[in-house]
Amino acid sequence: MTKQEKENIAIVGAGPVGALLAVMLARKGYKIDLFESRPDSRAKALYQGKSINLALSDRGWLALKAIGLDEEIRRQAIPMTCRMIHALDGGLTRQPYGKDNQAIWSVSRAGINEQLITLAEQQAGVEVHFEHKLTGLDFNSGTCSFALSHQDAAREAAGASVDYTRELVFGADGTFSKVRRLAQELAGQRISYSMDYMPQTYIELTIPANSDGSFMMEKNALHIWPRKNFMLIALPNPDGSFTCTLFMDLQGEISFESLDEEHKVAVFFRQYFPDAVPLLTDPVATFMAKAPSPLCLVHIDPWVVNNKVALIGDAAHAMVPFYGQGMNCGFEDCRILSELVDKHEHDWPEILPAYQSARKENCDAIIELAKRNFVEMSDLAGDARFLLRKKIEAKFSEMYPELWIPLYSMVTFSPELPYAHALAIGEVQKEIMDEVMNSPDIEQNWQAESTYQLLYQLAQEKLTPNILAKALSNKEINTISDTREVKA
Amino acid sequence: MTKQEKENIAIVGAGPVGALLAVMLARKGYKIDLFESRPDSRAKALYQGKSINLALSDRGWLALKAIGLDEEIRRQAIPMTCRMIHALDGGLTRQPYGKDNQAIWSVSRAGINEQLITLAEQQAGVEVHFEHKLTGLDFNSGTCSFALSHQDAAREAAGASVDYTRELVFGADGTFSKVRRLAQELAGQRISYSMDYMPQTYIELTIPANSDGSFMMEKNALHIWPRKNFMLIALPNPDGSFTCTLFMDLQGEISFESLDEEHKVAVFFRQYFPDAVPLLTDPVATFMAKAPSPLCLVHIDPWVVNNKVALIGDAAHAMVPFYGQGMNCGFEDCRILSELVDKHEHDWPEILPAYQSARKENCDAIIELAKRNFVEMSDLAGDARFLLRKKIEAKFSEMYPELWIPLYSMVTFSPELPYAHALAIGEVQKEIMDEVMNSPDIEQNWQAESTYQLLYQLAQEKLTPNILAKALSNKEINTISDTREVKA
Repeated sequence: MTKQEKENIAIVGAGPVGALLAVMLARKGYKIDLFESRPDSRAKALYQGKSINLALSDRGWLALKAIGLDEEIRRQAIPMTCRMIHALDGGLTRQPYGKDNQAIWSVSRAGINEQLITLAEQQAGVEVHFEHKLTGLDFNSGTCSFALSHQDAAREAAGASVDYTRELVFGADGTFSKVRRLAQELAGQRISYSMDYMPQTYIELTIPANSDGSFMMEKNALHIWPRKNFMLIALPNPDGSFTCTLFMDLQGEISFESLDEEHKVAVFFRQYFPDAVPLLTDPVATFMAKAPSPLCLVHIDPWVVNNKVALIGDAAHAMVPFYGQGMNCGFEDCRILSELVDKHEHDWPEILPAYQSARKENCDAIIELAKRNFVEMSDLAGDARFLLRKKIEAKFSEMYPELWIPLYSMVTFSPELPYAHALAIGEVQKEIMDEVMNSPDIEQNWQAESTYQLLYQLAQEKLTPNILAKALSNKEINTISDTREVKA
Repeated sequence: MTKQEKENIAIVGAGPVGALLAVMLARKGYKIDLFESRPDSRAKALYQGKSINLALSDRGWLALKAIGLDEEIRRQAIPMTCRMIHALDGGLTRQPYGKDNQAIWSVSRAGINEQLITLAEQQAGVEVHFEHKLTGLDFNSGTCSFALSHQDAAREAAGASVDYTRELVFGADGTFSKVRRLAQELAGQRISYSMDYMPQTYIELTIPANSDGSFMMEKNALHIWPRKNFMLIALPNPDGSFTCTLFMDLQGEISFESLDEEHKVAVFFRQYFPDAVPLLTDPVATFMAKAPSPLCLVHIDPWVVNNKVALIGDAAHAMVPFYGQGMNCGFEDCRILSELVDKHEHDWPEILPAYQSARKENCDAIIELAKRNFVEMSDLAGDARFLLRKKIEAKFSEMYPELWIPLYSMVTFSPELPYAHALAIGEVQKEIMDEVMNSPDIEQNWQAESTYQLLYQLAQEKLTPNILAKALSNKEINTISDTREVKA
């Protein structure tokens, strides 16, 4: 196949990742069929996807910038520069996410998805097929079989199905990916996989806007009510409302199952979220009416089968939302893949293994980081010693920015730094900070010069020669300044 | 449902575990349909199942004794009282498995399977259906759909299928269980699962009998050629031959993939197994001809869906063969389930959750132990300090049998001790032995009284009050003496 004869590509799943991938590949000259099982939400003013709040950050922006959609999306996004911690007594603590007003951005998943699908449709060579539900996939031939669920009653009654044979197939069909589950069934392919349900589940609640459209709480913050084993969070919407998410165990002492009567739920909200109760729209009725949604971790290895079918986004690496990286990571998959298409000059037998090798380890790292972050958000965020630790780190990072980027910033604001490096550096940082926090009277001495001398010495000793140097030598950390402009 | 109206039960998979379960439940008065996708191996003198060698030990014997089949099987089983370690230079070291000639028993998987199926057929109320391949399962109604693959050409051509609706369904269909995979697809059930392929794969080789039918090597031993990243093992057969298994990574420096030419394979065998080469039948040709088989770990949670469908044996907890516990553990599933049927007086909504709760944690423990044991078999078995550690443990265990049962013995020769307790006790023992092995000049002093005083003191301190006492208090350890007779 010469470079003129580009492969025809099927993308299964027109969520944000599938649609972004379609745009990127179409612009490189590929003919793309983008399949989605749901109807077109734009036509019906009906969004049926998952509605959990999304925090877009620099990895996501970097990918959107690559297709020129960043400015348009930024106009409807709300920057959140800090966590706002709501204590039991209603007291508020502000924890900046980074420095110099670095922010994560509250966005509507539905909105981004629709913008990306519209952009995909505008590309030459892209055809979007809604109401096409994947039922089968031949991993040798690339033949995808779809059941049709068109409103066209005659076709549906006939159990209409249709096959498309494409040279490459991407499974961008999310956490419960059919492409992945079909791959898992393949005999003789040695495909390892796991699906882990977390004990935590969630429901969404709402804090409406004031009657004048203004926000009832600080607009530019991600609000958290950390209550150790459960938490409430709230993200601002452009209309002045907040979308809130209550994360709590499905089963156990305080859980969705144990809070099974209205009066218990009312007591629960008054006891743990006293300042939120007056703001929330019908929290008790909503709690009673909604079935909590699950949270899952997905691992699979390999991501690529027969150099013909590849997974991308949640289909390959579903994670929990506690680091706000799910969509950012999926967008990064697309950006890296796109770069590899150029680097390997459209040679897919080179591109696909390189894609897997570039992404697998990093996605495993962010899955792990996201899982761990529940504790940071729900428990430590309200802990005085944890806040002190963060303050010391922030101060040290300002003194020696080339020596220390806090883990949260590495993940969120350093889009060229691979997640796996962030995880590895973060573990050494933790060791170092454990030692610093154990020094005598740190509560009193935290601003003393000696504290930062100790930190400097430990960082020089443990961090520079090993991990950070390795990361730097890969030149993956040194484009951070370039990407800072993204958040301007 | 009164106790007179017993449930009709479908068991999918007539391997050793499914057949044993059929016998046990039929004897309690249940009507059983036992389904197997393969043809009847007895009729065709054709065994198509996996042929990896099996070492039956006390957990397996205890279950077989419960149905009275132990004596018949023991007549064709060969006791192996020790590991026989083959060094690179051909030197032999004997490592007893236990004390007083405690043994694990080399048996034919095919033989045991056929004996169990024959016994199942002899039970009133059992019907065995060969060549019934499960294609679908309704987890609400208990309807199982099977494709028929009878030699009857007319039926096969017609794509014949048949449904059975039963009040309970057991998935005993092995590592690649269809019942499990169908369960994994259920929406809204929160089923977590994993399938992990190990780097190691295996092929089988043969050492034939001498022309007079005698054994070419020590008969009553499990032979091991431990070579760190790979190993050869050999188990005796009643006809004087040995079935050998070569475990090696599929990929890597020394691997099934790297040894891709006959001359490399010949060099490999001569270099690493010089004393085995003259005994093995065509090792190089066999190596070149055979595709290595995979080894997998399987986890799933829950094991029971809708109190209607339950998993058992490898379908629920496939493990690697390095502790010789796969079938033993599956048989233990059956024994425990059978005891729970009696305890809960045929009340299945009680039995099934109790079964899962009794087994899940213990099967997770033996999966973990089996995985770790590759290192012990392939690497440590040839290590002088490891052998010394084993000798010290054995001596101490003889001095204080109520205080110390070596981990291998807890797993293999203590069939009433739950695997999870063995794992927990074993970890404390490891800590203690690490400390003992670090005492000065242990190589010289290992027989000194002071060594055993230290051990006694550490065991009193760390073991008795916590773990061992807990295990003992559950009265699960104190029937060991009863079961010793099994091995007489």
